[in-house]
Amino acid sequence: MALVQKIDVWRIPCSGPSDLSGAQALIEQGLLDPASIVAVMGKTEGNGCVNDFTRDFATTSWCYLLAQLLKQTPKDIESRVAFVMSGGTEGALSPHFTVFTRLWVKPQAALVEKRLVVGIAQTREFLPEEIGRAAQISETAEAVKAAMKDAGIDETDDVHFVQVKCPLLSSAKVSDALLRGVEPVTHETYESMGYSRGASALGVALALNEVKKNQLSDSVVLSDWSLFSSRASASAGIELDHNVVIVLGQSTNSTSDYLIGSTVMTDAIDSRCVRSLLRDDLNINPDGDIAAISDRLVNIFAKAEASPNGVIRGHRHTMLNDSDINSTRHARAAVGAVLASIAGHGALYVSGGAEHQGPPGGGPVAAIVRA
Amino acid sequence: MALVQKIDVWRIPCSGPSDLSGAQALIEQGLLDPASIVAVMGKTEGNGCVNDFTRDFATTSWCYLLAQLLKQTPKDIESRVAFVMSGGTEGALSPHFTVFTRLWVKPQAALVEKRLVVGIAQTREFLPEEIGRAAQISETAEAVKAAMKDAGIDETDDVHFVQVKCPLLSSAKVSDALLRGVEPVTHETYESMGYSRGASALGVALALNEVKKNQLSDSVVLSDWSLFSSRASASAGIELDHNVVIVLGQSTNSTSDYLIGSTVMTDAIDSRCVRSLLRDDLNINPDGDIAAISDRLVNIFAKAEASPNGVIRGHRHTMLNDSDINSTRHARAAVGAVLASIAGHGALYVSGGAEHQGPPGGGPVAAIVRA
Amino acid sequence: MALVQKIDVWRIPCSGPSDLSGAQALIEQGLLDPASIVAVMGKTEGNGCVNDFTRDFATTSWCYLLAQLLKQTPKDIESRVAFVMSGGTEGALSPHFTVFTRLWVKPQAALVEKRLVVGIAQTREFLPEEIGRAAQISETAEAVKAAMKDAGIDETDDVHFVQVKCPLLSSAKVSDALLRGVEPVTHETYESMGYSRGASALGVALALNEVKKNQLSDSVVLSDWSLFSSRASASAGIELDHNVVIVLGQSTNSTSDYLIGSTVMTDAIDSRCVRSLLRDDLNINPDGDIAAISDRLVNIFAKAEASPNGVIRGHRHTMLNDSDINSTRHARAAVGAVLASIAGHGALYVSGGAEHQGPPGGGPVAAIVRA
Amino acid sequence: MALVQKIDVWRIPCSGPSDLSGAQALIEQGLLDPASIVAVMGKTEGNGCVNDFTRDFATTSWCYLLAQLLKQTPKDIESRVAFVMSGGTEGALSPHFTVFTRLWVKPQAALVEKRLVVGIAQTREFLPEEIGRAAQISETAEAVKAAMKDAGIDETDDVHFVQVKCPLLSSAKVSDALLRGVEPVTHETYESMGYSRGASALGVALALNEVKKNQLSDSVVLSDWSLFSSRASASAGIELDHNVVIVLGQSTNSTSDYLIGSTVMTDAIDSRCVRSLLRDDLNINPDGDIAAISDRLVNIFAKAEASPNGVIRGHRHTMLNDSDINSTRHARAAVGAVLASIAGHGALYVSGGAEHQGPPGGGPVAAIVRA
Repeated sequence: MALVQKIDVWRIPCSGPSDLSGAQALIEQGLLDPASIVAVMGKTEGNGCVNDFTRDFATTSWCYLLAQLLKQTPKDIESRVAFVMSGGTEGALSPHFTVFTRLWVKPQAALVEKRLVVGIAQTREFLPEEIGRAAQISETAEAVKAAMKDAGIDETDDVHFVQVKCPLLSSAKVSDALLRGVEPVTHETYESMGYSRGASALGVALALNEVKKNQLSDSVVLSDWSLFSSRASASAGIELDHNVVIVLGQSTNSTSDYLIGSTVMTDAIDSRCVRSLLRDDLNINPDGDIAAISDRLVNIFAKAEASPNGVIRGHRHTMLNDSDINSTRHARAAVGAVLASIAGHGALYVSGGAEHQGPPGGGPVAAIVRA
Repeated sequence: MALVQKIDVWRIPCSGPSDLSGAQALIEQGLLDPASIVAVMGKTEGNGCVNDFTRDFATTSWCYLLAQLLKQTPKDIESRVAFVMSGGTEGALSPHFTVFTRLWVKPQAALVEKRLVVGIAQTREFLPEEIGRAAQISETAEAVKAAMKDAGIDETDDVHFVQVKCPLLSSAKVSDALLRGVEPVTHETYESMGYSRGASALGVALALNEVKKNQLSDSVVLSDWSLFSSRASASAGIELDHNVVIVLGQSTNSTSDYLIGSTVMTDAIDSRCVRSLLRDDLNINPDGDIAAISDRLVNIFAKAEASPNGVIRGHRHTMLNDSDINSTRHARAAVGAVLASIAGHGALYVSGGAEHQGPPGGGPVAAIVRA
Repeated sequence: MALVQKIDVWRIPCSGPSDLSGAQALIEQGLLDPASIVAVMGKTEGNGCVNDFTRDFATTSWCYLLAQLLKQTPKDIESRVAFVMSGGTEGALSPHFTVFTRLWVKPQAALVEKRLVVGIAQTREFLPEEIGRAAQISETAEAVKAAMKDAGIDETDDVHFVQVKCPLLSSAKVSDALLRGVEPVTHETYESMGYSRGASALGVALALNEVKKNQLSDSVVLSDWSLFSSRASASAGIELDHNVVIVLGQSTNSTSDYLIGSTVMTDAIDSRCVRSLLRDDLNINPDGDIAAISDRLVNIFAKAEASPNGVIRGHRHTMLNDSDINSTRHARAAVGAVLASIAGHGALYVSGGAEHQGPPGGGPVAAIVRA
Repeated sequence: MALVQKIDVWRIPCSGPSDLSGAQALIEQGLLDPASIVAVMGKTEGNGCVNDFTRDFATTSWCYLLAQLLKQTPKDIESRVAFVMSGGTEGALSPHFTVFTRLWVKPQAALVEKRLVVGIAQTREFLPEEIGRAAQISETAEAVKAAMKDAGIDETDDVHFVQVKCPLLSSAKVSDALLRGVEPVTHETYESMGYSRGASALGVALALNEVKKNQLSDSVVLSDWSLFSSRASASAGIELDHNVVIVLGQSTNSTSDYLIGSTVMTDAIDSRCVRSLLRDDLNINPDGDIAAISDRLVNIFAKAEASPNGVIRGHRHTMLNDSDINSTRHARAAVGAVLASIAGHGALYVSGGAEHQGPPGGGPVAAIVRA
């Protein structure tokens, strides 16, 4: 009998980006095997924009911890585990790490119900001028397919969330490109984060057959908003030069105790779709006992953005014109609170910048719950 | 037969703090009589903190407009209309003005149902050293009683929202006090806003019998969080030296087409109390057609704050430790989005800084709906 | 004998963007004739970026005041006086207004020394898609020539500072263009401020023969940094749709008591050029009695920007990567303090965003001193 | 013949808080012996306020590097080297590390000229309620004396700069104190940084005989601004619970190639005192070749703050009323640029928050130059 995945998911609070005491305690208690960790998705309390070093600090801290525990170098750890740290815990959001472990086990009974599976892949490193353009799209699409294979998912319908960590254009990278006589997609670092997320999301859309290859080109990125993936989530960070892809989905080849479902918020205040997801897909009554909901709901993964046309349901918002607070910070605060009001707590993975991730102003949402 | 109140309420969007074109259009169409305006509560798009000049700009613009229309001076207008501008439209919130007009009419039939009434009052000007202390508490309490009388409300239970506009300590006011040898409650301008709001709210609590006079003193302000009003909303601004009080409530001596109800959010993500308010008190199904809800719901008035103990339902938030964004901005973004997800739009009056306004981390909420 | 200009310059402190009490006092004392005001250049305490309403609030307040004094409408005042409000008084900078009055007088003696003159002109209104492009360049150049003529300046060498106030692309303007099927130069409001300033500065450079017409096109704006004006200063604001141009220079056709000189800072910490300007051109010893310097020096007008290559004299700066504070705010704080350390006070006109205004990372500087 | 100090000082640029490649290169070239490092003073690019994790990230990175090189644990390194990371490189400031190494050598000739010496000491850990109060003052004074002894300095006149790293009150520490029934000096984290710096600086003043013991008490901290040290520099950080003290001074018991001198800026724009320090005390012509100045000048160490009375030389500043940017960030940008305009570059140690460090609005300045 073939081995199947057994995925465990731990949501661990932290007191700062380098606080791994929660994980250490689970490890010491024998509950969490560090060798089985395949991915860590963290919400850290930086600004989530260009000069957010909390992401790097968190990843560095995890690498040092696991290196020590597994007798490897920090570099080894970084290539073995997919770390995706998303900065920004505005409003009701609460910093935490979601740790995914994967074991391959022999099922003890016939598997009929689909359960949570996870797959990982990486692209090659990108040149500065490839970021935000067709090269990043197609390489990401290939990595998504590789990650689906790694997860044991055949049908794109069984993919519920694709997390991509992608690079940005620092001033140094822009200069490097210009010195070589090539023009990067933008000279602005903050803006480059959007381009990188956008191209990565279109790569996911391509892999999941949400858009066709002939619809894609350099020029559609951050321009043709009709093209998007309903299951992509991309975060840009200064600490890497390639894309890391994590596919979350369901398969009968799994003995996990977890289910995953997904939906799409049409705008930042669309609570109804999430209530429906819980009620209709995941068998949780959103008006039921809130402690019970919090207990079963391991995490919600969502993307947030200020609607690019400046209005939400016909009412002007001011997120895009605020020169004191970046719009991604506004959007995370808003969407995070809406989701927290349903989940009963704010330790949720809400990530900013939803370019080509869900419809304009809205974004993909996935929920992992105990079966 | 005695005259009774007929209150009308207009929620008018704006494209900036000085944009009164929406009001002007209503006036030109004969729908809004400028002479009947008793109060304007605005949400303007500044930072809502010390250096937010959008509040003053909006009030100044209203005064100039009404002065021209009513052949009075801007100063006359300011003493005739209660202007309360609350800065900060973070996240999904949308800048707008809520205009209250009051006519005294002869009822055409026996009045049995309680309907919306409004009352206004002002305190004397405060010395810098009185702000945030007992003097501000007791003067505010007196003004609340005067405003209740102005509204025709006898029972405190019929008061659903008391909006107070209160002064802050600018650097100049602090210096003035120190030069006279007296110590103001704080030397920090931003901090003084909290003290002023806190003392004002305790004044409301005193007037509404929510706290007893012997429980109050200088030292309880921003210290004894068990003392609070469930119906107070206070906003501090640099543009005034006294408190302005607006009482919103219900009375049978009213022919208004509007109802008002109120509840208290226990924390920033407490959506359930607002859903109950709509369903149980105001006869609106929160899961019903969202366009119909938006249509009947004139506005929600709410206070928001970062919970002072640093956690929401046991999960750490980072609002109080964020030195880039003031916690009031975080809290408005969060609470505003939660309410917008119920109301279907973000043109809501959500105001920051809920010291002694509702329980710690929570805040009062009132809703005005078409009957 | 022909009439000549007599320019007076008043630097008036304020306690907020709408505080005109300083000007009112001068008017009441008969020192400042409101009818003779031709230009007001203010530094207001907003963020100087997109959502800075302090500029509009200041201009509005001046218009209301002068309308009342001169028995005209606010709209009349706005077309009669050139108001240029620059937001942002970071660091040691101090909010103030510089008021220029102009009288035409019969000289009482032969005029030999060049003295301060002022000229004003305006362009037509721009379509959203013209902002930041060739149309704005050429229209601005024409307006500069008109303003030189108004000032009585024939030689471009006698022009020492050209202040331009230019529009930006609000979200509404971007939408307007897109709805009409035309693509504006950018979709980002903050970014549009740079394009508008850049094109305006290139217009000045064209008028002053600092660049040639055939070097200019849409594509050089914010791209070919070798093209710039050493005497242009442009500020973008949300409150206008056309460019306003103020030329400050010298002419023998003037009986003013003031001189003007100019130089160019090569970077944000280039104090030496300003010390030379005072010593060599304006006969002020920069190491002399600081009170005497402050007394003779009416104002310094300067542009500031973060050097676009990310370094100052080989050392990395972090202004362009800071997602919490816009780089223009950093740059004003830095350049403002450098100039204040020479002038002895911070009530200086230092304006952010020096695209094509001086060399990359540097900017034009002019000083007006009592003769 | 007794051994004497040989201090070397390295100013090393970095591309981010964890970038130690510059130090690693010096170590690999054999120029910098990691075992001889006694102190590292860094400027990192965070906000320098409460949620600035770049300080911790830098210290952590140094500890990991040195632990690996010296075969010790990171914890050993932290107790062996005094790390003081000051966040905030606003304006022209440039992130860098200043590394002090100390060797004890046998002098090859009679020593007559005073040269640079360094001494280190630490206090015990403070309880939350001791921070910002008399206990922190007296413990710091003892540590300064211990560090003077460690440096081999007998006379307080030979002390030119005392750097203190001190703790702050996080929300957790405030809660801890309150739970134990004791009241900390403030409940606000940001405010606690000022109290901790202030008490630490008064401890330095006490040790250097700048104030007398009977002038000091809990109540003078952040209150009696006439009490201050002209040579203290204190930085607060979330990453420690005790004070670390570094004394920089001169002694004839030193063969170092470096001199140190000090002065006091009377306000944020006081460039003249620094020009005098260079010219009169350190034999550098401030108007001389700027490359030569940059070459001899290893670093300038300075404290910056917004003048607490809201004015600089009679002109109102807006730093204290800016709710978008903390006043410490404004002040560093201003003072950093003034000093950079003299030094010719911005890789300077300018630290914010000068409570009781120099006169109100001003601050101590020290310069280390090659002899």
